[in-house]
Formats: sequence, structure tokens, C-alpha cells
Amino acid sequence: MNITAQDIKTIAEREGVDREALQKAIASGRVIILKNARRHIEPVPVGGDTTVKVNANIGMSPEIADEKKEVEKAKAAMKAGADTIMDLSVGGDTWSLLKRLLKLEIPLGTVPVYEAALDTVRRTGSILDMEEDALFNVIERQAKMGVDFMTIHAGITKKTLETVDRSTRVTGIVSRGGSLLARWMRHTEKENPLYRDFHYLLELIKDHHVVVSLGDALRPGCIADATDRAQIEELILLGGLVEECRRAGVGVMVEGPGHVPLNEIEANVLLQKKVCKDAPFYVLGPIVTDIAAGYDHIAGAIGGAVAAMHGADFLCYVTPSEHLALPDVEDVRQGVIASKIAAHAADVARGRGRHRDLQVAGARAKLDWEEQFKHLLDPERACAVRGRRHPRDPRVCTMCGDFCSMK
Amino acid sequence: MNITAQDIKTIAEREGVDREALQKAIASGRVIILKNARRHIEPVPVGGDTTVKVNANIGMSPEIADEKKEVEKAKAAMKAGADTIMDLSVGGDTWSLLKRLLKLEIPLGTVPVYEAALDTVRRTGSILDMEEDALFNVIERQAKMGVDFMTIHAGITKKTLETVDRSTRVTGIVSRGGSLLARWMRHTEKENPLYRDFHYLLELIKDHHVVVSLGDALRPGCIADATDRAQIEELILLGGLVEECRRAGVGVMVEGPGHVPLNEIEANVLLQKKVCKDAPFYVLGPIVTDIAAGYDHIAGAIGGAVAAMHGADFLCYVTPSEHLALPDVEDVRQGVIASKIAAHAADVARGRGRHRDLQVAGARAKLDWEEQFKHLLDPERACAVRGRRHPRDPRVCTMCGDFCSMK
Repeated sequence: MNITAQDIKTIAEREGVDREALQKAIASGRVIILKNARRHIEPVPVGGDTTVKVNANIGMSPEIADEKKEVEKAKAAMKAGADTIMDLSVGGDTWSLLKRLLKLEIPLGTVPVYEAALDTVRRTGSILDMEEDALFNVIERQAKMGVDFMTIHAGITKKTLETVDRSTRVTGIVSRGGSLLARWMRHTEKENPLYRDFHYLLELIKDHHVVVSLGDALRPGCIADATDRAQIEELILLGGLVEECRRAGVGVMVEGPGHVPLNEIEANVLLQKKVCKDAPFYVLGPIVTDIAAGYDHIAGAIGGAVAAMHGADFLCYVTPSEHLALPDVEDVRQGVIASKIAAHAADVARGRGRHRDLQVAGARAKLDWEEQFKHLLDPERACAVRGRRHPRDPRVCTMCGDFCSMK
Repeated sequence: MNITAQDIKTIAEREGVDREALQKAIASGRVIILKNARRHIEPVPVGGDTTVKVNANIGMSPEIADEKKEVEKAKAAMKAGADTIMDLSVGGDTWSLLKRLLKLEIPLGTVPVYEAALDTVRRTGSILDMEEDALFNVIERQAKMGVDFMTIHAGITKKTLETVDRSTRVTGIVSRGGSLLARWMRHTEKENPLYRDFHYLLELIKDHHVVVSLGDALRPGCIADATDRAQIEELILLGGLVEECRRAGVGVMVEGPGHVPLNEIEANVLLQKKVCKDAPFYVLGPIVTDIAAGYDHIAGAIGGAVAAMHGADFLCYVTPSEHLALPDVEDVRQGVIASKIAAHAADVARGRGRHRDLQVAGARAKLDWEEQFKHLLDPERACAVRGRRHPRDPRVCTMCGDFCSMK
């Protein structure tokens, strides 16, 4: 473990949890710590009784590859309160961007299969030519560079792929990594190397203290596909891999859906917690309806808050551009804020962080705007909204004026 | 009842519910119909197995009173999908605005105590001079004009006011109508006339088919104050008034909080449903954290979705300007969309309206953008986001390009 006793003490204080309990939770795998051995960043704990964390995805696409813009997005995400960044680039000079991102003081995650696929497509024109070694080479290189966590799509196997292929899913496989591997597996008729050589993979990353984020390649791509056989069969398989990671001394968390109707979220979290032996649960959204494109950050905040209230530990943000376009800087900011609201609402429901709400409420009761703004998620924005038009009485706002109930 | 057999048939078809079951639900008061006897609008059902409805508040303030702008907001709300509008004006030429709003083809709600208070303040300079008759005169006049539902703050009584005054609440009384009445009651030492003369009030509005929306004057103004004695004592009292409305043949719904931590929402809905004999529950938000000012539409969408999943029937929107300023037109639009997402997510959780999600999902799987846009909540916005930058391959988007999993 590259986490010192001092680190544990600092984390426990920051999170408001008991130091010994934290140490136990880390030892059992209920809490994992994001921090590659190479990096000089504050270690970020995920899971157990620590606060719910928020990740922001950035990355270049084949259509738009602007390194500077992606760094700008990462910085905007950090400013808005993201706890981690994932670089999901599938275009541009990916290694160069990765180097730049690793200079930022925040844990960084990647999806190594993207890099392997991109490199193959560039060399041969087709993902189908991807060599198995290429995958592990990328993983090793990224681990050495300092990547803190990696999505590993080891749950898509010949067996689970058969289940999804036989299913009547509306949207099939929507995980980008999952669909790449599925195409490759169907073509080569080989087992997924990330699954077959999972132990080898763990050996490659172990000493670098890279956390494995077990990807859910078969997550539902629409609410109609949620909680189906393929998704749950993969989850059960991931539960087995959690145990292998723990035996190997590698930190592990499990990724989850995706698109889930509101009434199925609690069961999804419960199932993950049971089947994966309390490994931290990292959910994408979940988005609770398919009709909200343009506002999927809101659909994702609803699902994320409910998931985290029931025990999910880590929320991957969704931006207003989801399903439509590569997000811009403002989308990233909006996405992080929406997820932070969801994360905090869940923390509050779990009895954590309420002092901050109390500070805002107390300041409101006193009509102390400066004090209120200090404790808000986004003081700048609140100040700007209030300042659009000035009330005659500086103590109130333009909503109620003299009819202010606080006054 | 001013609802014809044809109306019932039309509503049942639009809502996808059984006609006879709907009729029974209306007869029992589980479903109420918003439509004043004077008005020529589509009747809007609230409650029971009908879809979750969304209300948008507009209205002039003492600070900003622009009739045209408020009409513009009402129209923007309608375009974004609001099912009803409430005019909460406490400034400007309120009667003139009301007349204009009643020309729009959507149910309109008011809070008569605002008008009575505003008129008193204008005449004497102080709300404390309000005469009891003034309240009932406003109610009668608005009923005759065609107002479809009215918030009646009859739950703040000498007894419940004493409970709140003795409490250790952080934010006291935050309902605008509630705080006006509290000041008047403390000063005059009289009982709340809306409570004392509740039967008289029902007589005034009965023949006009105005629905009573029992206001929650003592709703919590921050999450720390949620589900406290004052709030629940008022709710129990409102449950008694529900029965009086039903005996008098007046449609009734019950308003609810407000600011509620995520983990207390289910209990709040259950309690209202039991205590108020399944009267439709009309919730404001609820907002699940106090630190999200500037984004309270998102905090409200999280709470609204969860409340409606557990049985709330009617969501009052919250705009991004809540707690900060009078909303502008774009705020209104954002507020309605956020609430519509919450309402639909809850409908989906309750097994309603999933065909729409399925249409979007099916179109996505076929990369049929035109078809997808047709079924979205806000096609214009989705189209604009996608169109910001054009992908090289028109079938994909700039997020994944050739790495599109659907492709």
C-alpha cells in the first residue's frame, strides 16, 4: 500500500470518519484509495462511509481532437468540484493528452482498450486486427505513467456475450469498450483477453497501485433493457473478479448502469453490494428516462442521487450533451454540478455533510447573502442570478420583495 | 360536476386509464379535475392513476411588475409542457394580469391571500390592517372570473402557529401566504379566517367548481426543519379539511413540502396519503439540499421524481432562480423541463408512459435522429446541441464518431 498512516489520518479528518474504522474498511476492500504510486496528489477514498464522489469524463473524439480544450475541461471540472477525471479519448494524440492530464492534481482514470483499439485502427484500418498483447502493453504503459484507475471490461466473455446476443434487447451493447471487444471476439472467436488473462493484468498494475474499475460492458442502453439477464450475469461474473483482485492485493471497484428506471435502482445497488462483497459501486448516471436528451445531466442526477442514497459510492457525471455531441466546457461544468447535487443529496440522506445545508439555512434566515453564498455549491452562479436585477431593499430578492417571508 | 361524460371519456383515453375506474376515482376524490365552470379549457385530472402533472409559477413582484413578461413566461411554460400555471403576483396590476392569463387554455391557480394582503398594504400601508371580508371577497371574485384552483392556507391556526412558534426551527415560516397570515394572527390575536370560516369559503367557490389546494403554511424552509411537529400537525389538520371539502362536494388537493432530505420523502408521501385519505398530493419540489441555489431546479427534480414515484401526483416546478431572484423566461423553461423529467421518471417507475422511452431507444438503435428527436421532451434543444458541430458521418455524433457503439 502506498498510503501512509499520515494519509489515513488526513483522509479520516477530511471525511469526518473514524480513523480505525477507515483503516479496516480499506483493508477489507470496502473503501479503495485512488492514487498511483507515482503520483503526488491527495489520495481520494471511494466507498464505505466516505462521502459520495463524482467523476467527470473528458477526452478527444475522432471528430474533435483539441488537447488544450480537453485540459481546459478537466480544469473546469476540478473547479466545479469533481473528485476525479477520466480521459476517454478515442482520437488525437492520446499519449500527449494523458501526460498533460497527469500534471493536474486529481486522480485520473482511463479505459485502456480505447487506446489499443485506436492504435490498431490507425495501423491496420480495423479494430478486428487488434493483438492481445497490445491491450496489456497499453495497461502497463499507462500504469507506469501514473494512471490511478482503469476501466477493465473483463465481464464480457464468450458466455455473457452469448446471453446478450440471444436477448431481445432494444439497444444491444452500448458500452463503447464492450462493443469494441464484442466485435473483436465475434470475429476472432477468441475469449476476451482481459478476462482470460486477468491475473496477468493484475500483476502488471499491482505495484503501481492502480485501482481496477470493473467495466460493465453489458450495461443497459435504455430503460427497457435494464436489469436483464445479460446485465446481471455480467455482474455476477464481476463479483468473482472482485474476489480475485482482493486476493491479489489490487484495489477494485465495480461499474454499474447506465439507464435504469427509478423503481429498479434500489435493487440494482443492493444486488451489486451483495454479489460484489461491498466493493465500491461506480455508477454512470443512472439515467432514469430516455426522453431527456439535452438534459440528461438532470435525468442522471435523479438516478445518481437515488443510487447513492441506497449505497452507490461514486457517480460518473452525465452532461447535457450526452447522446448528442462531444461536451464543451460549459457542458462539463453543468454535468459536474448536477452530479455534485446528487452526491450531496445522497450524503445528506445518509447523515453526512448536513452542517453545510445548515449554514446556508441559517444565513438565509438572517438574510445574510454573503454568508449564504460562501456555503453554496456554486457561489459565483448564485451571485450572478441574484445580481441580474437589484432589489430595492438589499436584504431581500426580486422574487418577493417586501413580501419576503424571511423579512 | 361540470365535467361531462364525454370529458371523462376523453381524459381516460388521453391518460390511458379505464373510464369506469377514473369515474370512481373522481367520485371518491382520489382524482380531482381542474376546470372552473366558466372556462373553456381541456379539463386536467390530477391524482390516482393519471400521469404526474407539472405546475409552473409565474407572477409579478413588488420589485418587477411587467404583465407582458409574465404572459410570455406562462406561454413558455405551456410550450415546455406545463399542465397548469399559478399566478403568484404580489405586485403590479394583478387583476389585469389575471384576466390575461385566463385567456390562455390551461388551468390557472392563485393564492387569494396575496391579493388581499397586497390591496391592504396599498390602502393602509400595513398587512396588519387586513379585514377578514377582504379575503373572502377576493376568493369570490377570482372564482367568478374563472380561476380553476386556489391555494388556501387554512392549516395555520392559533394552535399550529403556537407549535411553530415554540419550535427550534432554523427558518421558521417560509410560506409567503403563511407568514402573512401569521403576522396578522399574532397582531390581531384572531383565529385564521380561512380556517374559522372554511365552510363559508367552500360555499363561495362550490358552484364555480374551483378546486381547493390546501396550502402548507408551515412547510419546512430548509432540510433541517423537515418533517417536524409543526409540519405534521398542520398536515393532520389538513386531513380533516379534506373531509370537509369532500362532504361539501368541493374538489380538494393537499400541498406539501418544500425542503426534504431524500431519505424522508417516502415517509412524507405515505403520511399525506394516509392522513388525507388519498387526496392528490401537490408538492413544491421537494428540494433535497439547501446548498444548490442557482440550480434548485435540479435539487427539486431529484426530490420531485422520488416523491412522485412514491405517490405524489402533482409537482410544482422550481426554477434556477429560486431563493435568488424573480425567474426570467428561460428560467421558467428550465424549471418546467426539469419537473417534466421528474414527472416522467416517476410515471415510468409506476409503469406509465414507457412507450415514449421505447420509441427513443428504438430510434437510437437505428441511428435515426429525426425519429429520436420527435419523441424527446425538448426536440429543439436536442437538435441544437447535436448541430453545434457536425460529425463527418451524419449517422453518428461528435462524441464517439466512428467508435459509436450503435454503429
